[in-house]
Amino acid sequence: MELLIPLKNGSKTPLYEQIYEYIRNEIRNGGLRAAARLPSTRQLAENLKVSRSTTQLAYDQLVAEGYIEAKQYRGYFVCDTYGILEINRTVEKKEDSGGDERCKPSSEHIVVDFSPRGIDLETFPYGVWRKISRETLVDDNREMLLAGDRRGERNLREAIRDYLHSARGVECRPEQIIIGAGNEYLLMLLAAVLGRKRVIAMETPTYRQAYLTLAGQGVEIRPVEMDGSGMKIPELENSGADIAYVMPSHQFPTGIVMPVKRRQELLAWAGKKEGRYLIEDDYDSEFRYKGKPIPALQGMGKAEKVIYLGTFSQSIASAIRVSYMVLPPAVYQSYCEKAGFYASTVSRIDQNILYRFLEKGYYERHLNRMRAVYRAKHDKLLGELKSLENQFTVSGEYAGIHVMFTHRERTEQELIALAAGQGVKVYGLSSYFIGKEQRRKESSSVILGYASLTEEEIEEGAARLKQAWL
Amino acid sequence: MELLIPLKNGSKTPLYEQIYEYIRNEIRNGGLRAAARLPSTRQLAENLKVSRSTTQLAYDQLVAEGYIEAKQYRGYFVCDTYGILEINRTVEKKEDSGGDERCKPSSEHIVVDFSPRGIDLETFPYGVWRKISRETLVDDNREMLLAGDRRGERNLREAIRDYLHSARGVECRPEQIIIGAGNEYLLMLLAAVLGRKRVIAMETPTYRQAYLTLAGQGVEIRPVEMDGSGMKIPELENSGADIAYVMPSHQFPTGIVMPVKRRQELLAWAGKKEGRYLIEDDYDSEFRYKGKPIPALQGMGKAEKVIYLGTFSQSIASAIRVSYMVLPPAVYQSYCEKAGFYASTVSRIDQNILYRFLEKGYYERHLNRMRAVYRAKHDKLLGELKSLENQFTVSGEYAGIHVMFTHRERTEQELIALAAGQGVKVYGLSSYFIGKEQRRKESSSVILGYASLTEEEIEEGAARLKQAWL
Repeated sequence: MELLIPLKNGSKTPLYEQIYEYIRNEIRNGGLRAAARLPSTRQLAENLKVSRSTTQLAYDQLVAEGYIEAKQYRGYFVCDTYGILEINRTVEKKEDSGGDERCKPSSEHIVVDFSPRGIDLETFPYGVWRKISRETLVDDNREMLLAGDRRGERNLREAIRDYLHSARGVECRPEQIIIGAGNEYLLMLLAAVLGRKRVIAMETPTYRQAYLTLAGQGVEIRPVEMDGSGMKIPELENSGADIAYVMPSHQFPTGIVMPVKRRQELLAWAGKKEGRYLIEDDYDSEFRYKGKPIPALQGMGKAEKVIYLGTFSQSIASAIRVSYMVLPPAVYQSYCEKAGFYASTVSRIDQNILYRFLEKGYYERHLNRMRAVYRAKHDKLLGELKSLENQFTVSGEYAGIHVMFTHRERTEQELIALAAGQGVKVYGLSSYFIGKEQRRKESSSVILGYASLTEEEIEEGAARLKQAWL
Repeated sequence: MELLIPLKNGSKTPLYEQIYEYIRNEIRNGGLRAAARLPSTRQLAENLKVSRSTTQLAYDQLVAEGYIEAKQYRGYFVCDTYGILEINRTVEKKEDSGGDERCKPSSEHIVVDFSPRGIDLETFPYGVWRKISRETLVDDNREMLLAGDRRGERNLREAIRDYLHSARGVECRPEQIIIGAGNEYLLMLLAAVLGRKRVIAMETPTYRQAYLTLAGQGVEIRPVEMDGSGMKIPELENSGADIAYVMPSHQFPTGIVMPVKRRQELLAWAGKKEGRYLIEDDYDSEFRYKGKPIPALQGMGKAEKVIYLGTFSQSIASAIRVSYMVLPPAVYQSYCEKAGFYASTVSRIDQNILYRFLEKGYYERHLNRMRAVYRAKHDKLLGELKSLENQFTVSGEYAGIHVMFTHRERTEQELIALAAGQGVKVYGLSSYFIGKEQRRKESSSVILGYASLTEEEIEEGAARLKQAWL
């Protein structure tokens, strides 16, 4: 296919943008149909008499925005954008719903994206995974194809119990562990188990996927403000909630690590009334770059009050859709009564592969490797942005895979716009606020995730940010 | 470990039952802990001075009831039975919730179990699956590890579209297909998409997992009686429901194949009001042993009124947790608005493995093979039970993987008890009734599933049934 794009050389819209806009509009108005193949960047550059980097830039932008995709060895293809407008409308209504980019094309031109959602993929142990898969798929474990234990495979739950005990200080029996395809699914299950009449307090700002999932389940959510230690106890007391959803090890997005005192206050709050629980989302606790890892809230002696949530999406790969929750005995019982009939959502084959991955020590090795990789990226980013420190406060560092930068005067909108002007995407804190304040909130903070970027990209992005913000 | 079981030789409780009861109680009261290894049937037989078939019988029973499990080459181990009592209580409350056996030990001693839930495992294409997995897990498709399209992988949705179009006459675009980890998950998603204020009509009797899932989502369910053609239209009209959940290709459990006229009446009903929909669960449409396969309701010209549900659990293996639904454009839009943020629950790796399985024609070959296997079992069962035909009406044959036997006088309780007396487990129709009539319903029908049994087991089971029922 040949694209005859009328380029204005004199125009102040750069050539790559004219190309990008032409193709985007063609896709939007259906001139280019889904799955249609685009000319290669080289062909297009030749046809239009422009440099290849120009066409490459345009394509990169279209890819970043989900209009086209690059297929290995096959070139660029138009994505399906059916319903994209509906989705946008919603996402705009809800601000950033943490959606995949296909759901919300932005209009900036991004070179470096400090997305807090990405993870490092270079280090995924393909070889080991292939080997284990091969070992797992042998004819003599036929029973693996039968519907298995609804809570998840016994051997995997035992391996998770051992890991949680030694790495996170979690106190539980394998029986209390429920394995599911991602945290969202487990939260859907929890809503059914705890009952939709529940009132759940969530920190604001918080992890939007969890908020949207619980709200989508018809559970009432009460946003509760945070101070430097996390969720404010008096506000929690007044919220009327009987369940509090918190992320003590590294709050998303603020990165606050909840001090022991606040943890004890939360446990005390939960202890005051029957039926009160804490949901501890320990999503990125694996990564800590300074001091000792802080054990989970669940292990602080009131395990009967804590519903513990963990996932492998962060520590292995999003594609591995395996999360788990540890239910206190009482909640486990209502799980048996209200949700005991749901079959596990994770393939038994995958569960057995993951089991071997943990059992044979590969997971531990993988985590150590990831820690080194993320620590290096973390140090790189903070090192490169050191000179920002007299204008910004940095928080949430030394743990997880994102940090927060707060400016002394500028608003987040300014910071985002300035960064975008330099081709860098950063994420405003306010889009993570929930409840009514949501809109009114005036934040001066932006979130920078670094997991999916190479050190070179981090360096490039940091340089651009200094350009933009200094 | 040595088990010192005090056997009473004179007792009228058979020896195997004394052994079975002793071990069961040891497990129940914690004397035998989960994962403890039992002596081999040979050892135990020697210690107790009984025949090996006696100890084998006892172990088989304990396995059937989920107290112990046999591990390849390793022997018998005590299962975890934590919470088993809670689970029972519920399951009894809800009658057969279609639970895995571990959740509801029965007290009969079963030799042949005509469970309608099993599938054939001998024919699972391990070699191919291993080969494809190996091909899929190659280092150069890193992007596979990123969070993918929330609806499921584009290539897999295209392959499913093609299959549905050619095999089931379903009219849709890949964009309308949502892939999820099992029908239950998709129904949870649907409840969120359609809204929990909806009133859904379901046939009674029906597939309990679907009923429990939807009810568990807070959706109001109205049971609607069936006649020989399926859901009664006048009752549907009066039910006040705006959504009807049906299984036209082979209703579970009755096996009714909905004639075209009733299908048209249902479509007409849906067409009468805006927001009315049919949920077509096409769960075992792959298997038909007589006449041409009947195309899906969805393909009858009113696709905008039909939400189509399909699964690979039945046709490949329960362990492959992949189901899909086809949403009409209007429902797709509210999916984007209300549930567009949920990440796919199926691992992208698995989706790509399945894609290749379909794409390379392995699925079609596998289906043909399964059809032959199931047809043989189907014919075997009906052939062996031919002599029952002057006392029973057989229905639901020639399709799917189960049939229904209805006796002219006897109640299902009698039939079940008589069968159990001969060591055969059959499933009473009444346990699939929903709504108030549930208990009052007096049925004379039992369900026999044959998918997971070998032809020898079918022969054995049939012989015992004739003993029991003639």
